[in-house]
Amino acid sequence: MTPEQARARFRAGLVTPTAGWCDGFTQANLVAVPRELAWDVLLFAQRNPRPCPVLDVLEPGAVDGPLFTGDVRTDVPLYRVFVDGEQVAETPDAREWWRDDLVAFLIGCSFTFERALAAAGVPVRHVEQGVNVPMYRTSWRCRSAGALSGPLVVSLRYVPAALVATSVAVTSRYPAVHGAPVHVGDPRELGIADLDAPDFGDAVRPEPGDVPVFWACGVTPQAAIAESRPALAITHAPGHMLVTDARDEDYLVQP
Amino acid sequence: MTPEQARARFRAGLVTPTAGWCDGFTQANLVAVPRELAWDVLLFAQRNPRPCPVLDVLEPGAVDGPLFTGDVRTDVPLYRVFVDGEQVAETPDAREWWRDDLVAFLIGCSFTFERALAAAGVPVRHVEQGVNVPMYRTSWRCRSAGALSGPLVVSLRYVPAALVATSVAVTSRYPAVHGAPVHVGDPRELGIADLDAPDFGDAVRPEPGDVPVFWACGVTPQAAIAESRPALAITHAPGHMLVTDARDEDYLVQP
Repeated sequence: MTPEQARARFRAGLVTPTAGWCDGFTQANLVAVPRELAWDVLLFAQRNPRPCPVLDVLEPGAVDGPLFTGDVRTDVPLYRVFVDGEQVAETPDAREWWRDDLVAFLIGCSFTFERALAAAGVPVRHVEQGVNVPMYRTSWRCRSAGALSGPLVVSLRYVPAALVATSVAVTSRYPAVHGAPVHVGDPRELGIADLDAPDFGDAVRPEPGDVPVFWACGVTPQAAIAESRPALAITHAPGHMLVTDARDEDYLVQP
Repeated sequence: MTPEQARARFRAGLVTPTAGWCDGFTQANLVAVPRELAWDVLLFAQRNPRPCPVLDVLEPGAVDGPLFTGDVRTDVPLYRVFVDGEQVAETPDAREWWRDDLVAFLIGCSFTFERALAAAGVPVRHVEQGVNVPMYRTSWRCRSAGALSGPLVVSLRYVPAALVATSVAVTSRYPAVHGAPVHVGDPRELGIADLDAPDFGDAVRPEPGDVPVFWACGVTPQAAIAESRPALAITHAPGHMLVTDARDEDYLVQP
């Protein structure tokens, strides 16, 4: 299936997580905010490129862009709508909530580097176990930008000790989709008390000899937006990404 | 000499190109524009990361930031001031022109990867010949952003044919400072009629067997600002960069 066909199915109403869809094509996090907050979001992303790698920004009011054809208000399988920082709706069609002054940000997603990890022989436990990647709010703060501030959110992947270096090398070649890990080992240094109780996603079982490895996570801007409580923000629902026409290889820095 | 000591000398009035100063520390292009144009500049940079890799954005009205202590209005050796797109002054002290609503952008500079090229055994001809790097407006257009549009500006380095691949590999590891070349070979495909007549900088003599290799250039945002004619813009003068406390290694993507 092509990304265009996938988006057409989501536009027609299909609601499903997008993991594994359109292998090799880049999936993106969506964050749309009113024009007056857009500067803060873009600057926040510039200052925190590990969690917030911007793949593209649509024109104010625009519903498509160079990375995809269609309609950003309908082509994501599931949206979340936040009013004053509170989630007020989860919907497969955001048109009812969309405003002409919204600016949509497409932010890189770790699905891109997970494919590269698997290709390099690094097992991806949450995929093996058929669950969503576990994500945690940390005690680390992002650099703030205007009204936007918030914690760094990380995703966890357990990696066999002998493959930790490989996982670092592989993901460091994808700086546009979170890049190298931000932390390897002790979760307490990140302020994470219990790996079995993630703040987002699902808990994952480690295998014997696994080391916890943490990557900056695309949920970070959503956490900052929740803290700053804008009048309106529309995002994808976790795991329900925008499937773009860009290819994962486009974001590979060749070694 | 430390970067702080260098900046203090420039602040005290020394006017000199900064090539070779504070080896290993990152130098930056400066572009400062009024708050109302800042969104366009940041979005233009996001959409054109090869020529406009943003290292940092100062707070509106701020004169220093995490990459350097001191005063961005005085610590660059030489500034250019543009009013309505026309250069009206070249001065070692920009305080007379600065306004509280200016937002200063620090943009990556190829000095960082030239050091890596030399370390990899790739001769850097303009350094050998003691002149400024030659730069050219191309016929390629950048992706526009709001009021900002303009041509891609490239810098030229002649590279021995056997070392072209090395020059690509080395610079691709520095995506934050222009990254890999945008073009290797025929300058006519870039709309460049005469390599001996650069639009900025100095002409350089190739050695026998050299191939022209073109990198996206940090003068690109200045060319776009000249086209969009903002009420006020303050930039560094070519070659007279802001010497920051960041290290070149900070921008290396480890292969």
